[in-house]
Amino acid sequence: LKVDSSKILKGDRRELARAISLVENEPDLGSEIIRQIFSKTGRAYVIGITGPPGTGKSTLVNRLIPYFKSKEKQVGVVAIDPSSPISGGALLGDRVRMLEHSLDPSVFIRSMASRGDLGGLSRATKDVVRLMDAAGMDIILVETVGIGQAEIEIMNVADVVVVVIMPELGDEVQAMKSGITEVADVFVVNKADLGNADKILLNLERFRYTRNGWKQAVVKTVAKTGQGVQDLFKVLEDYENTFKSKRALREREESGAEKEILQYLEILIRKKIELKIRDNQRLSSLASDVADRRIDPRSAAETIIREVLGWN
Amino acid sequence: LKVDSSKILKGDRRELARAISLVENEPDLGSEIIRQIFSKTGRAYVIGITGPPGTGKSTLVNRLIPYFKSKEKQVGVVAIDPSSPISGGALLGDRVRMLEHSLDPSVFIRSMASRGDLGGLSRATKDVVRLMDAAGMDIILVETVGIGQAEIEIMNVADVVVVVIMPELGDEVQAMKSGITEVADVFVVNKADLGNADKILLNLERFRYTRNGWKQAVVKTVAKTGQGVQDLFKVLEDYENTFKSKRALREREESGAEKEILQYLEILIRKKIELKIRDNQRLSSLASDVADRRIDPRSAAETIIREVLGWN
Repeated sequence: LKVDSSKILKGDRRELARAISLVENEPDLGSEIIRQIFSKTGRAYVIGITGPPGTGKSTLVNRLIPYFKSKEKQVGVVAIDPSSPISGGALLGDRVRMLEHSLDPSVFIRSMASRGDLGGLSRATKDVVRLMDAAGMDIILVETVGIGQAEIEIMNVADVVVVVIMPELGDEVQAMKSGITEVADVFVVNKADLGNADKILLNLERFRYTRNGWKQAVVKTVAKTGQGVQDLFKVLEDYENTFKSKRALREREESGAEKEILQYLEILIRKKIELKIRDNQRLSSLASDVADRRIDPRSAAETIIREVLGWN
Repeated sequence: LKVDSSKILKGDRRELARAISLVENEPDLGSEIIRQIFSKTGRAYVIGITGPPGTGKSTLVNRLIPYFKSKEKQVGVVAIDPSSPISGGALLGDRVRMLEHSLDPSVFIRSMASRGDLGGLSRATKDVVRLMDAAGMDIILVETVGIGQAEIEIMNVADVVVVVIMPELGDEVQAMKSGITEVADVFVVNKADLGNADKILLNLERFRYTRNGWKQAVVKTVAKTGQGVQDLFKVLEDYENTFKSKRALREREESGAEKEILQYLEILIRKKIELKIRDNQRLSSLASDVADRRIDPRSAAETIIREVLGWN
């Protein structure tokens, strides 16, 4: 699979799709493409949409798209499919509805399978966002199911994090909030026509806090009918105007970059060590020495570090 | 905490207990003790006892001890407590029963908490076994709940692996067996007074296979009454006579040593890299370059590998 990065930069959708497949399935070849397009990234406004399963994230994304289009924006959507078979079915319907936009040349939708390897997914997601960015998407919506670590990971990908919850989640929300408060720039209470929406809103408003000059926003929506979606759109525009090219986003970006460099360091170093050791009989001779009790395992490892890797 | 390794080698129980605590809680200091006693290890016969929760492993261990004592053997027991609160309670009763041996100077019992970090536990278990070995234990029984990876890990610790199952586990056994067949040297069907023990025995006998000249043994016990425990004891003696100081065990030991060296390599290298990078401003300056799109994250990691670690 050969991908021409200059075609991606010209916005060629087919080439973009092929590059995304490469990033997902062939990390080494994918990295080469990323290297080629990287200097052209950083233009898009990346919106992360997360929250528990069933809160209507896909429907919300679906309803947001027309607002961005009305501003002549090119929209990219990265939908991260949870591998869970339970929530998978429910989401599928919304994903199919998203397809109504998929024939639209100003909207590019791609879903990715999460295979449980969160680190790997997060890395690939970042690169998919970069490809869409380089291909000219102005807005990139990254939709992911927020359970545990995932909602933290989205901070490393998105400029703004929207956490979607709904009434009748009850105490779950309270439990969740402790982890989510830290990542949410915007709270959406979706399905606000159900149950105790106002109580939840009140609670969120009471406890929201200000970070880097931005006070967490709280928006009430009924994505199914479209109610409140325009308010969310306005909040997102507002956030972009407040923050784009500002110091706070810069810091988020630098700390994300640091994490990503460290992740690559670990992957690359492990590879190099495997290579160096494979070409070398020292490991098996030392294992034999350990079996003979001539050297203990930790000292054997230290020997390899000294002799094979040349470190002191 | 200062530990005198010469006292361990003389069989001092208090010093042994302190060294075990060190290995569990202070890996770096623990490694130093292991280094000092390592050449005196490899004498003990290490028996791994694994299997699903509730199959009566602790009771079985409890019943086996007198047989070893009758042969004038010093017995060590390492009981790995599962952190699961569900099975934890049930096991506790059996553990208390094990205490009846704990005042006995020829029996040394130690339980270890599994904290979910299987790699770390397996490493510590190996070292605890070594300490007991160096302190003069002839027989070391390692009891661990076999779920998923744990039963594979025990192969790296034990000379012989005993898998304990029971009737009425039904299909679970079939599912389990696929993973367990590879590690079991001896199958015990405990609680054989219940249900369909004979059917299970028949199944096990039909599918057992021969490895390195040893045909998987199948033993039927009722640990609660002691029934069949002598048969298990004889099988274990038989295994020891067949294998101790034989080629097959040597291979198992060498491959275990190789894995352990590689584990230490990874730990030590990660530490060294963290140290080297902490003393160096290169990471943050590169993160800043990534944020400016002057370099992509993978190339930044490659730069660190080249510049800071001196690798090509």
